[in-house]
Amino acid sequence: MNQIAFLPAREDVLSRRKIIIEDLAELLPAECLVHEARELVPFETDAFISYRRVPLAVALPKTTAQVAAVMKYCHRYKIPVVPRGAGTSLSGGAIPQEDAIVLCLSKMSRILELDYPNRTATVQAGVTNLSISETVGADGFFYAPDPSSQLACTIGGNIGMNSGGAHCLKYGVTTNNLLGVKMVLVDGTIIELGGKHLDAAGYDLLGLVCGSEGQLGIVTEATVRLIAKPEGARPVLFGFPSSEAAGACVADIIGSGIIPVAIEFMDKPAIEICEAFAKAGYPLDVEALLIVEVEGSEAEMDAMLKSIVDIAGRHSVQTVRECQSATEAALIWKGRKSAFGATGRIADYICMDGTVPLSKLSYVLNKTSEITDRFGLRVANVFHAGDGNMHPLILFNANDPEDAAKAEAAGNEILKLCVDAGGCLTGEHGVGIEKRDLMRHQYNDVDLNQQMAVRSAFDDGWILNPSKVFPLEGRPEGRQDA
Amino acid sequence: MNQIAFLPAREDVLSRRKIIIEDLAELLPAECLVHEARELVPFETDAFISYRRVPLAVALPKTTAQVAAVMKYCHRYKIPVVPRGAGTSLSGGAIPQEDAIVLCLSKMSRILELDYPNRTATVQAGVTNLSISETVGADGFFYAPDPSSQLACTIGGNIGMNSGGAHCLKYGVTTNNLLGVKMVLVDGTIIELGGKHLDAAGYDLLGLVCGSEGQLGIVTEATVRLIAKPEGARPVLFGFPSSEAAGACVADIIGSGIIPVAIEFMDKPAIEICEAFAKAGYPLDVEALLIVEVEGSEAEMDAMLKSIVDIAGRHSVQTVRECQSATEAALIWKGRKSAFGATGRIADYICMDGTVPLSKLSYVLNKTSEITDRFGLRVANVFHAGDGNMHPLILFNANDPEDAAKAEAAGNEILKLCVDAGGCLTGEHGVGIEKRDLMRHQYNDVDLNQQMAVRSAFDDGWILNPSKVFPLEGRPEGRQDA
Repeated sequence: MNQIAFLPAREDVLSRRKIIIEDLAELLPAECLVHEARELVPFETDAFISYRRVPLAVALPKTTAQVAAVMKYCHRYKIPVVPRGAGTSLSGGAIPQEDAIVLCLSKMSRILELDYPNRTATVQAGVTNLSISETVGADGFFYAPDPSSQLACTIGGNIGMNSGGAHCLKYGVTTNNLLGVKMVLVDGTIIELGGKHLDAAGYDLLGLVCGSEGQLGIVTEATVRLIAKPEGARPVLFGFPSSEAAGACVADIIGSGIIPVAIEFMDKPAIEICEAFAKAGYPLDVEALLIVEVEGSEAEMDAMLKSIVDIAGRHSVQTVRECQSATEAALIWKGRKSAFGATGRIADYICMDGTVPLSKLSYVLNKTSEITDRFGLRVANVFHAGDGNMHPLILFNANDPEDAAKAEAAGNEILKLCVDAGGCLTGEHGVGIEKRDLMRHQYNDVDLNQQMAVRSAFDDGWILNPSKVFPLEGRPEGRQDA
Repeated sequence: MNQIAFLPAREDVLSRRKIIIEDLAELLPAECLVHEARELVPFETDAFISYRRVPLAVALPKTTAQVAAVMKYCHRYKIPVVPRGAGTSLSGGAIPQEDAIVLCLSKMSRILELDYPNRTATVQAGVTNLSISETVGADGFFYAPDPSSQLACTIGGNIGMNSGGAHCLKYGVTTNNLLGVKMVLVDGTIIELGGKHLDAAGYDLLGLVCGSEGQLGIVTEATVRLIAKPEGARPVLFGFPSSEAAGACVADIIGSGIIPVAIEFMDKPAIEICEAFAKAGYPLDVEALLIVEVEGSEAEMDAMLKSIVDIAGRHSVQTVRECQSATEAALIWKGRKSAFGATGRIADYICMDGTVPLSKLSYVLNKTSEITDRFGLRVANVFHAGDGNMHPLILFNANDPEDAAKAEAAGNEILKLCVDAGGCLTGEHGVGIEKRDLMRHQYNDVDLNQQMAVRSAFDDGWILNPSKVFPLEGRPEGRQDA
């Protein structure tokens, strides 16, 4: 360890980088540190891919103790740290910066304990979302939040972004399924929040940490709730003559108090894109499609479906198609879950993540079309309708800077529209870099100052994921340069 | 307004009090300020009744603007403020102090908006818990958290304590049913957190505020989730030959993934006390009783009950009794919900509120008996078993100081037992004054310092409900004297 009281100034990049790598090499086994240029490439960006930055180095710790050692070091020398799971963030939450080290939890991928009497699993932060359900599936359980990236994304990343997914309508998002974490504070101290019990004595710091985008500490272990698999589940397709009719139908289903497991929405462009990719049997003669999944016993599913069909009938439903087999059900979900990938095959796109009150769904869908029409852009809507969590995919040509600028401007207008409709900038993707400047549209100075004061109460020097969440302007003195 | 830069020092109590009352009288209408000795009596303590303190004055604002004016004034002159709803706190959360004003929200009792398409109600903080369900009941909805004090307790108080209730097993506690708040910060600034949409951009301050016992701000309005009433509901009584058998049965029901609406537990002393009071038809020939409520269609209830009866059979169940009418169902719940009151008729008692992982239920029940036996005290157990939220009622004679000291010592041992079993000091009653010193058993210095840093990020001067939640020793410099 370089026993010096300070590191070379940031201007002296090369020698500073050299010293940091030497020091980290003393804290971590060789296979847990990456710093060669070609090895750094995979860590230069994430699924947002708006730009690339080469970090100083990447630490890939295997234990909480190693995470603590790295944080203690970085805290001492005020080195920015960008936490990372699988790098699937759609808001740029894991994009590094050049003066930072990336702290990647992917090697911490063990399931530590399955406790069925308490219906919990305790896992390391680098475990993938899907692997939990795969591990407990044979015993009749699953982990509910199911982001479309669940094959790759990690629980640590899910906690950072409070991730959702199609089946969160019934079961809630990450914060509703998280019971406890082990977390390394900025100075390397290790704390535990929550546990296998109900409630917390004192403040709900666990709830605060969930969705804080890695700025309050590094989560290394999580205890999550397991849910018993239902007796059966059945996705049903409802085709409508217009997006308005489909949107109004969603509001009526939820407004009547019925909570299916999922209500997913696709407009005509999305139906065509997904059907071409997955051959799921989506109807192509409708303007909008709802995938409504019900679950339970046959009798329960029948009863709930009957109520939903009645409501859909009041909204001019054209097609109601129950799937006839497990294969068909899997195809229906494959089509939906590959929507982003399938869209990427035909055009570049940016995916918005605004959330609106359900009563505003039709209004916001209409206005979204008006906005993209005005910019001369195409849009495909495919989203978690039951939660009001919209995902307009704005299609554009990334090789045309003017087109890209239009897409960004249209995206910003759509997110502002969501906020103005009583909604929110993000449903499940987080703020990241993408939406940090739009935070001023959602919040006034008092709101933002209070959030930043909480951030400073955990990380006074703002070294954890510093460029994310908050607008660069208006930060506390000395925290603007991140 | 006394336009002075400072108030008389705290030592000069009388003139300080006089000036504060004069100043508050300029901020509030006459009917919104209470300061005569006899008028202050109802505000001297709360349902914890461990001791009484006469506050300086009581402000009973009718508007958020009035709350803001009071907070701005108190912040300027560093006058402690104790927020209060209906004063039903069981942990002393609303007990005032002599140098504080009480800010009582009971006059803010209007329901502001019912929004069925979004399944929300927006209410003022002083609205009682039950009045929401009463207001929306005819339209087929209800508000789920149901503390036993729901006839009197307010939503503001429920938010402060993150209150639960028997039916929270299925529907979650307050934090799971709260969508947004309007809150006055310590300096009188008004902020809004959350809304009618999913998720929050940036940090989940709403989740943090819920359960913060009035120390982060004064909630004046809340938007809560409404839930559709089930088709039917049926409480069923299961009698067991021992508390261990009943506890193991609960762990098996939940461990199998079945989530009834409620699983309430009573041991023999509790059964006898409640039956004598409510004539609910509880079996008197069993050692422990579970009230399991199922809901849904007749077929759904039958199917779930069948599974539960099967599991109970593996735990030597003696009696299974389905209720035959709505009247009988109401009596069953009346008996349970009056348990504390009924106990109060036969003895003084203190009610613990520890929470444990379900797999430890039988162990902790056994150990609880050992502890009370050792102190020569009687105990009655009546609690939300499905959540692992235990409520041992320790019976004692309040006129005998030695007996009272024994009861307190036994209670502390029981709460420590819950923590040591992997549980928590509180399930739904909060820390308040009652458990502030026990926080050291649950948390180490790092944990507590982090919670206190968050508190200071909202209220640097610690004027909001200062004597609660945190142990007096170990607080930041200058915050010990509260």
